[in-house]
Amino acid sequence: MGGEFALIARHFRPLAGPGALELSDDAAVLAPPPGRELVLSADAMVAGVHFLPDDPPDLVARKLLRTNLSDLAAMGAAPLGYLMTVSAPRATPDAWFAGFAAGLARDQAEFGIALLGGDTTSTSGPVSLSLTILGTVAPGEAIRRNGARPGHGLWVTGSIGDGALGLLAAQGTLPDPTGWLADRYRLPRPRLGVARHGIVAAALDVSDGLVQDVGHICRASGCGVTIEAAAVPRSDAARAAGDGYLALCLTGGDDYELAMAVPDAAAAALQAVAAAAGVAVTRVGRFTEGVPQVTVLGPTGTALALTQAGWSHF
Amino acid sequence: MGGEFALIARHFRPLAGPGALELSDDAAVLAPPPGRELVLSADAMVAGVHFLPDDPPDLVARKLLRTNLSDLAAMGAAPLGYLMTVSAPRATPDAWFAGFAAGLARDQAEFGIALLGGDTTSTSGPVSLSLTILGTVAPGEAIRRNGARPGHGLWVTGSIGDGALGLLAAQGTLPDPTGWLADRYRLPRPRLGVARHGIVAAALDVSDGLVQDVGHICRASGCGVTIEAAAVPRSDAARAAGDGYLALCLTGGDDYELAMAVPDAAAAALQAVAAAAGVAVTRVGRFTEGVPQVTVLGPTGTALALTQAGWSHF
Repeated sequence: MGGEFALIARHFRPLAGPGALELSDDAAVLAPPPGRELVLSADAMVAGVHFLPDDPPDLVARKLLRTNLSDLAAMGAAPLGYLMTVSAPRATPDAWFAGFAAGLARDQAEFGIALLGGDTTSTSGPVSLSLTILGTVAPGEAIRRNGARPGHGLWVTGSIGDGALGLLAAQGTLPDPTGWLADRYRLPRPRLGVARHGIVAAALDVSDGLVQDVGHICRASGCGVTIEAAAVPRSDAARAAGDGYLALCLTGGDDYELAMAVPDAAAAALQAVAAAAGVAVTRVGRFTEGVPQVTVLGPTGTALALTQAGWSHF
Repeated sequence: MGGEFALIARHFRPLAGPGALELSDDAAVLAPPPGRELVLSADAMVAGVHFLPDDPPDLVARKLLRTNLSDLAAMGAAPLGYLMTVSAPRATPDAWFAGFAAGLARDQAEFGIALLGGDTTSTSGPVSLSLTILGTVAPGEAIRRNGARPGHGLWVTGSIGDGALGLLAAQGTLPDPTGWLADRYRLPRPRLGVARHGIVAAALDVSDGLVQDVGHICRASGCGVTIEAAAVPRSDAARAAGDGYLALCLTGGDDYELAMAVPDAAAAALQAVAAAAGVAVTRVGRFTEGVPQVTVLGPTGTALALTQAGWSHF
């Protein structure tokens, strides 16, 4: 047996769940939960782009899993399982794979899911990862981006901007005495269970910057939105960085918080659900009639000019 | 809107099928076909490892899709849809993406499937791709690797060795006057519909070399196997390369043919199903009592000594 198969047996087979056939067949076989729709999403992560090459491997693995769980959270879906591909340089030490698998094991336990299948290959470039997550939702109850209507409040979970500031902190270019910011960059908190059908009219997770991502809701829904910058929740650590970083907080991305359109009549229900999940929710703006455009009002009530709305790979 | 979103809209949105929500949400939503089990597999492909950096992008895309379809073929499953991640250097020309998408479009039509979702990111390294395929099978009818029994015949589809020789041909180190070999390296033929429950007792697709891959069936099934090298079907082009390449044909991989354990009583049924699918099938050996070991008999009836059984990434 080649080293590849021993590596898979050592590190990944212990992560395999029902349906994975112990990772010993060409594919997983899974009976879909009856009466549910499948929700499916895939994300890639590349060293040097989505994480730092010397980030601890357990946190890299957990970020990979959690960014995908965050997509399920945005759709109002419950996690079911995942498939994963790992392309790593041949010289990658076994301890890296051990740490990576340990991170997955920890989050599998936390989120109640298991590995279904995947592929492990070599690469001449940086570590390149992909993960496809499967979730389920009651038929017709997936939350989409196109349900926002003028008058709905724009709500966000948690705090916005920690991911972008956390990258600077992890790179050593921003003080981070408590380590909060770097932690939030390396370990997103998927907000599962907060966005519920019948309460939340539209949602997505903020991965590329609040302003740009809320723009996706606007285009899908055919309405505008006004965001009050002063209302956008920032952590103590983000506030300590100073208002010079406000624009980066609004556009930098890597937050993996939810942005949601919620009718005022459902606001109390949202707050109750979020409180039960231990997640803060804050109204930061309101959807408006008109062209699909995001207006950000600064502290003085005038529109902020942002040089870019968010992150783009190309 | 960043270039990333325009790129996705231009090249990948036209590939989106039902459930993909036009790639405009965080995830796809799919009602699983009632009364079927899901079959799921994920493969990664990296430029310079799984394909040549200057391979035509349409063929790269089709190889990515087809290697995954080959996994479904091995399980006896029917294709349903796929998710895909593409990590490419920022300087990748738009024409590369256009060619890549054109290849997918062509094979989507050929195999009756569509794109469900995915992710497009930049990378500082070589193009890194992943694809997760979804298929379905009747409950309990997925074909696994653990069903081979002593006395079953070992059958293969098509011809063995063209993939490994095709890599040499594509690299210019082996003459390939007809282009057959390079074509077989660049464009696998997934053998969908050949491996059927009730006929085939165990199967896998030959991706890492016939000898190594059949060893997986042996270990999963708890039996040995004897392969007659002279019976292993080689294409005219592979035979023209000479018997000096026989060992490479048996161990080189990238064949994406099926290796199957078939009771003699089902051999005629296998041949009928394969003929209807337009696929050649050949008995190349027989499973035996004893330790999970692959014995390859050379033309004179003595066991061949192979320096390695197949490909390993690590």
